Amino acid sequence: MVVPDAALPARVRIHEVGPRDGLQNEKATVPTEVKAEFVRRLADAGLTTVEATSFVHPKWVPQLADAEELYPRVAGLPVALPVLVPNERGLDRALALGADRVAVFASASESFARANLNRTMDEALAMFEPVVTRAKAAGVHVRGYLSMCFGDPWEGEVPVPQVVHVCRALLDMGCDELSLGDTIGVGTPGHVSALLTALAEAGVPVSALGVHFHDTYGQALANTLTALRHGVTTVDSSAGGLGGCPYAESATGNLATEDLVWMLRGLGIDTGVDLGRLIATSVWMAGQLGRPSPSRTVRALSHQES
Amino acid sequence: MVVPDAALPARVRIHEVGPRDGLQNEKATVPTEVKAEFVRRLADAGLTTVEATSFVHPKWVPQLADAEELYPRVAGLPVALPVLVPNERGLDRALALGADRVAVFASASESFARANLNRTMDEALAMFEPVVTRAKAAGVHVRGYLSMCFGDPWEGEVPVPQVVHVCRALLDMGCDELSLGDTIGVGTPGHVSALLTALAEAGVPVSALGVHFHDTYGQALANTLTALRHGVTTVDSSAGGLGGCPYAESATGNLATEDLVWMLRGLGIDTGVDLGRLIATSVWMAGQLGRPSPSRTVRALSHQES
Repeated sequence: MVVPDAALPARVRIHEVGPRDGLQNEKATVPTEVKAEFVRRLADAGLTTVEATSFVHPKWVPQLADAEELYPRVAGLPVALPVLVPNERGLDRALALGADRVAVFASASESFARANLNRTMDEALAMFEPVVTRAKAAGVHVRGYLSMCFGDPWEGEVPVPQVVHVCRALLDMGCDELSLGDTIGVGTPGHVSALLTALAEAGVPVSALGVHFHDTYGQALANTLTALRHGVTTVDSSAGGLGGCPYAESATGNLATEDLVWMLRGLGIDTGVDLGRLIATSVWMAGQLGRPSPSRTVRALSHQES
Repeated sequence: MVVPDAALPARVRIHEVGPRDGLQNEKATVPTEVKAEFVRRLADAGLTTVEATSFVHPKWVPQLADAEELYPRVAGLPVALPVLVPNERGLDRALALGADRVAVFASASESFARANLNRTMDEALAMFEPVVTRAKAAGVHVRGYLSMCFGDPWEGEVPVPQVVHVCRALLDMGCDELSLGDTIGVGTPGHVSALLTALAEAGVPVSALGVHFHDTYGQALANTLTALRHGVTTVDSSAGGLGGCPYAESATGNLATEDLVWMLRGLGIDTGVDLGRLIATSVWMAGQLGRPSPSRTVRALSHQES
């Protein structure tokens, strides 16, 4: 039953991350043509933004080492096709192929910056400045991913003011939009409210914010609903719930696009997505990967083998 | 991070259904002593209401055929131990053992009554009247389960006024509380709001209402959050997410108690539950059943084999 809620937005833009975030940790190599077909099918299902690949060094993400081969195969599709660029070298590769939307990947956690880059958070942020500056100079749209926006209650949490600080820094650098990531999935609705309230008070326009929740603790949709109440209209998700989870073969990390669409459709919120086509795409991709989709909605509405 | 939300209740009572709803469809017989230990461990983890078993005819639910053996083993625990009684015969059996809380199982869907009982919905409701009347006369607390409160968008949906009608009928019969079930898990937050608003307008006190969401489409926690905003303070869930799902071996039907507790804890909502003990209980029970828990929080925080 479709029952709209006046406190929620009328339309949500889904930022589909399946081909990049969903596949990047796959061990078995997915053929470039399968990836291209995946992107095409997602566009055909009505998704308007499909993050296509990453121009990271192949040594770090071997699965996406074919970015140069993949991007030209999908570049003509009538959808936005952002690509991840970790640094200037990645930006050069993306620009050489004519990419007009890129994303950089920052973190809101000091310990993450220390552990991964042996830098302070501000030093890590400074690394992105030339990437963002050059991308903007080239007329390219820049998304800033911000991981670890919520934290881990067993090992510590990320203070809200710190996340606000990094958001401001990325916007001041020139980022057009930000994606607030709950990378380990521990966030709960009150925390989401607190962060979005603090960002609004700091003058960050909600139109520049997307949310990227993981379902590791089952909280992704409750958190998304909370974000929508704060006026967020960009939500990241992954078709079929693709995306590495260290715990169980078909357990999910990323919020499944189908589960998101199910909720939004019930709320009368327009996404432009044809759920049937999307599920067919995820079932097809599950077949390519040789295991069932972890999306609950895909499981409920498909007859895929489990 | 604990961030309370002033629009939500300060305390929630979890109605734990694992031993009854969670186990009833298990094919392999679970020994009575394992069931008793499960109930004991749940009580020890801080749950205050544990639905212990069902006095249904053994032919229909062979797994719970040991209700007479089980109930006396747990009856002394300092928690509420409701039992399901499908009819007067079941009530007799429960009363003979001294049960002081029973539950009847009605449906809000006309087609369900037709298919299962070959009766109209009102005829089906009339069947419960003597059960409820006699239970109340015996001083027993009666919960009325109401299944199919939301419906299935592929095959039809259950109109809100019809659900309100059945709720009123069950309360007029003498039920002390109702549990609004989304048996097939298709409901979304706007629909939950619409139903709870209509029930309030019909004079049904929210204190008499519990919610029972299934995670078949991943909507259970978003729906629960919505119900809390309407003042609902009783939430049904199943430890470890136990409960039959026809789709995949470890996919969930029932909302997992751990995923619920994770959300409530983050919102500063008191449940009395010790999450660590609860997870240990679900991991132990998963070992008894020979498969991993489908609860995402259990997977994230335990090192169980998958």
